[in-house]
Amino acid sequence: MKIVIIGGVAGGASAAAKARRLSESAEIILFERGGEISFANCGLPYHIGGDIPDRAALLIQTPEKMHDRFNIDVRVQTEVTNITPEQKTVTALDYRTGQSYEESFDRLILSPGAAPFVPSIEGIDNPATMTLRNMADMDRILTTLDSANTRRAAVIGGGFIGLEMAEALTHRNLSVSLIELAPQVMAPVDVEMAEPVHTTLRQQGVDLKLNTGVNRFDHHEHGVTLTLTDGSHLDVDLVILAIGVRPETSLATTAGLKTGKTGGIAVNRRMETSEKDIYAVGDAIEINEWVFGKPALIPLAGPANRQGRIAAINALGGDAEYRGSQGTAVCKVFDLTIASTGLNEKVLQQSGTAYKKVYIHANNHAGYYPGACKINFKLLFSPEGKVLGAQASGLNGVDKRIDVIAMAIQAGMSVYDLEEAELTYAPPYGSAKDVVNYAGFAAVNVLNKSVEQVYSENLTEVLTETDSILLDVRSPDELIESGTIPGSTNIPLDNLRQQLHKLPKDKTIIVYCAVGLRGYLACRILSQKGYSCSNLAGGYAMWRQSHSLRTLRQTERKAA
Amino acid sequence: MKIVIIGGVAGGASAAAKARRLSESAEIILFERGGEISFANCGLPYHIGGDIPDRAALLIQTPEKMHDRFNIDVRVQTEVTNITPEQKTVTALDYRTGQSYEESFDRLILSPGAAPFVPSIEGIDNPATMTLRNMADMDRILTTLDSANTRRAAVIGGGFIGLEMAEALTHRNLSVSLIELAPQVMAPVDVEMAEPVHTTLRQQGVDLKLNTGVNRFDHHEHGVTLTLTDGSHLDVDLVILAIGVRPETSLATTAGLKTGKTGGIAVNRRMETSEKDIYAVGDAIEINEWVFGKPALIPLAGPANRQGRIAAINALGGDAEYRGSQGTAVCKVFDLTIASTGLNEKVLQQSGTAYKKVYIHANNHAGYYPGACKINFKLLFSPEGKVLGAQASGLNGVDKRIDVIAMAIQAGMSVYDLEEAELTYAPPYGSAKDVVNYAGFAAVNVLNKSVEQVYSENLTEVLTETDSILLDVRSPDELIESGTIPGSTNIPLDNLRQQLHKLPKDKTIIVYCAVGLRGYLACRILSQKGYSCSNLAGGYAMWRQSHSLRTLRQTERKAA
Repeated sequence: MKIVIIGGVAGGASAAAKARRLSESAEIILFERGGEISFANCGLPYHIGGDIPDRAALLIQTPEKMHDRFNIDVRVQTEVTNITPEQKTVTALDYRTGQSYEESFDRLILSPGAAPFVPSIEGIDNPATMTLRNMADMDRILTTLDSANTRRAAVIGGGFIGLEMAEALTHRNLSVSLIELAPQVMAPVDVEMAEPVHTTLRQQGVDLKLNTGVNRFDHHEHGVTLTLTDGSHLDVDLVILAIGVRPETSLATTAGLKTGKTGGIAVNRRMETSEKDIYAVGDAIEINEWVFGKPALIPLAGPANRQGRIAAINALGGDAEYRGSQGTAVCKVFDLTIASTGLNEKVLQQSGTAYKKVYIHANNHAGYYPGACKINFKLLFSPEGKVLGAQASGLNGVDKRIDVIAMAIQAGMSVYDLEEAELTYAPPYGSAKDVVNYAGFAAVNVLNKSVEQVYSENLTEVLTETDSILLDVRSPDELIESGTIPGSTNIPLDNLRQQLHKLPKDKTIIVYCAVGLRGYLACRILSQKGYSCSNLAGGYAMWRQSHSLRTLRQTERKAA
Repeated sequence: MKIVIIGGVAGGASAAAKARRLSESAEIILFERGGEISFANCGLPYHIGGDIPDRAALLIQTPEKMHDRFNIDVRVQTEVTNITPEQKTVTALDYRTGQSYEESFDRLILSPGAAPFVPSIEGIDNPATMTLRNMADMDRILTTLDSANTRRAAVIGGGFIGLEMAEALTHRNLSVSLIELAPQVMAPVDVEMAEPVHTTLRQQGVDLKLNTGVNRFDHHEHGVTLTLTDGSHLDVDLVILAIGVRPETSLATTAGLKTGKTGGIAVNRRMETSEKDIYAVGDAIEINEWVFGKPALIPLAGPANRQGRIAAINALGGDAEYRGSQGTAVCKVFDLTIASTGLNEKVLQQSGTAYKKVYIHANNHAGYYPGACKINFKLLFSPEGKVLGAQASGLNGVDKRIDVIAMAIQAGMSVYDLEEAELTYAPPYGSAKDVVNYAGFAAVNVLNKSVEQVYSENLTEVLTETDSILLDVRSPDELIESGTIPGSTNIPLDNLRQQLHKLPKDKTIIVYCAVGLRGYLACRILSQKGYSCSNLAGGYAMWRQSHSLRTLRQTERKAA
């Protein structure tokens, strides 16, 4: 059995190692176009920023180690330029010798990855505008940073790499502009949940330009001048293009392999392409996301590793199936963590799927234990209670809660299960009622109709269209400290029972507090006393996040 | 509807608040024997140790706030001394006035909690020997600590409170002995998994005495002299008794309520006791643990809160059921975290249940990102692959992994699901293959018979009883640095293919490496080459943990 693997990072390296564990007798050849295999591509921004001082730490596996441990014939700096499926051969070009040669295979595993997307904008192809995919790209950026003249940078794109690079360049004392065409960074979360990331970026001195694109690049001796879509100009010394990635499918399509709707290489659950004995894995393929089973490109390392193992098992006559991906993701943005799993509201709306949502602001651990900080949490669920997705941000404990929800989604659990989740509790780690439990409680209250919710994005509309009163149940000192929603009346929750007579029964009472909990308690009192009432989901905190976005958009519209 | 609740901490306070949310019209009376309700009992050791400097931070809810917010008639310093179920009345004794009075109820919810267990040992009842259950106990300990003469302390019992108090008193610069009758502290985990806790305690200067009890206490003007079961004496100024708790059932049994096999108040899944309209919740009740459905006492805050809410729902005519508890627990011991969920090996063995186990030592996050540290992880699963329990320790990320497994157990997931778990990954948070994934891989390898395992506790027996060779596949520098298992032969993994001729085919090869991963790879090579082989589960690391325990026991046996 002769197995040829194209691409030596994540999926390809995993496939090679798994194939060897399954078969000592197989001949395994791994082609890698670059100089390294299995390097820590997720670590590149952290070496640039200085968190990982030692470049060698990024080289997880060397061709030599891969050979010694797994008896893999690793051929770096060698690009496969052609595949002939019917003859079961590939053509390989060795960059070092300039020679091309043929290699036969019994099974072929493609792991070509995805390349940074470079749009066709005038002047974009210039020496100061760079992408970051591999060690060579990283080294090129580092060389530029070592020049004393590199003081200002523009990062284009607010995805994982864009955010990590904005942080890395700030750590390197550059003045950084982050330019994002969408109204938010971190596309996997919804716009209001990205707002804490926007705030963090601005607090850290990043010049964040949302709803902004680049019309042209002018490279000159002093750097690059960007002409932005708002007509303004930006002079920088370095541009990092991090708009996203596109699956590398040219080799596959030239060989006649089918691609899917999203442009990725089409595979079935066994990682088989449209051609017999040819498998494909990783960022280049189209896979089914988990919750809906729709085709998607999910260029993440975890799925790539799993797919690599599955392809190896099947290539060697086994039977393994990939279940799909649920798109679990996390990003560190300075001291903030933002993470998500499952479906977001944008996707649910686009697909016309019925859903409900709740917001929770709760401590990462017992409030009385030092270091407690708030987690900003959003849970999406079906009208029947099935958990569809979650998003969260905060300083600590965010990844843990999203991992818990990732398991809930994988298992098809409901919000009733989240109520009952029995998570670790001691004061340094959590609370007897965890954020996840609170999300379950709040969701069940919605499903049980214990409370009606109003969302911040609809508040103005609801207040205009219904005969209603906006009731703030926070304490007076909170109003002074944080501000209020215009037009609201204040009755603190603890005085509500005594002051009910102040509220007319013929109007709908829209209640809000700081984060939604006291608003819920107020609604319980009001509804039992015969009032029609709703609670503002996520309270004043979420209204402010949503409102600041709206103000921004209106300002931009006026400016446009 | 008149609801009377006995006990104002955790379960009782939760029941009161939930009852009010459900009914504005109910009359709700909460009796609490102590001076405070809903105080942070889990925070007491941290105030003693100084982590929580402000005593008031522990008072989560005051009687006044409970009244203002929830309209609850809170009666502190009032003990219910009698229940008459047929007449639906309770007798209450107000400590402040010395007066007793009757109060009727429609529904009664008992949340009396559990009291520290005080065994009948000669001299145990002395002024320097204290337990820690409430604020008054804490204040008493703090007063003693404020005396300049308090320099040495003995903590008796290595459970949560014992461990937390050993740390707290060490922080207060006391010389601390921790005395535990069992061969391990932290009973929820298995003995080999408790070993890192033992090491941490000793490194932090705690005089840890395992397999040791106290025969008598002699109180004198200079403190207390303990006579230990090994015949030695220990002179201390303060003794903290933290042997465990016993459900407070006297009020319930006097009233004729049934108790279960474990001594806790018997309830059904609706939290109903044997008497109509009387419910019981919290540490005083016997509940079903989750995985087997066997009766158990699980005195933890999370379950108590959930039970309180369920009792309130049912008391007010609703229909809610408690699902049982899976005993998820976590403890901070200096800088170490130790946590567990589900069943441990001791319980599985006692119940004669078939199970399998794997050990994983893997980084909490990407090894190349600063601050990476190992998690010591044990997974227990059924021969069919169902996840039964997990235990872990380490400096960071332990609670997250146990929470993930807690969800897996709640959902009835299998080790095949753990392989596929899609958890958050970025270098600061995890690895593309998380500890949980690795545990799944290792477990599936066992189920698939990709590898046979030998356990450290059986190694000597296996080596004696079979014609076998012990093969160390680590690199020579590791052997020098860490030591070896006596009688082993060394062939580094990366040389194994070349040196196979050195291994006789008629013997069984028992392979080990540092933590088990390379041992597994070696077994894959060996078994495919026709060798009979097994991998030492958890490798040299787990052997050393297990071996140090055995040496300790043998030494103790000789001393005895």
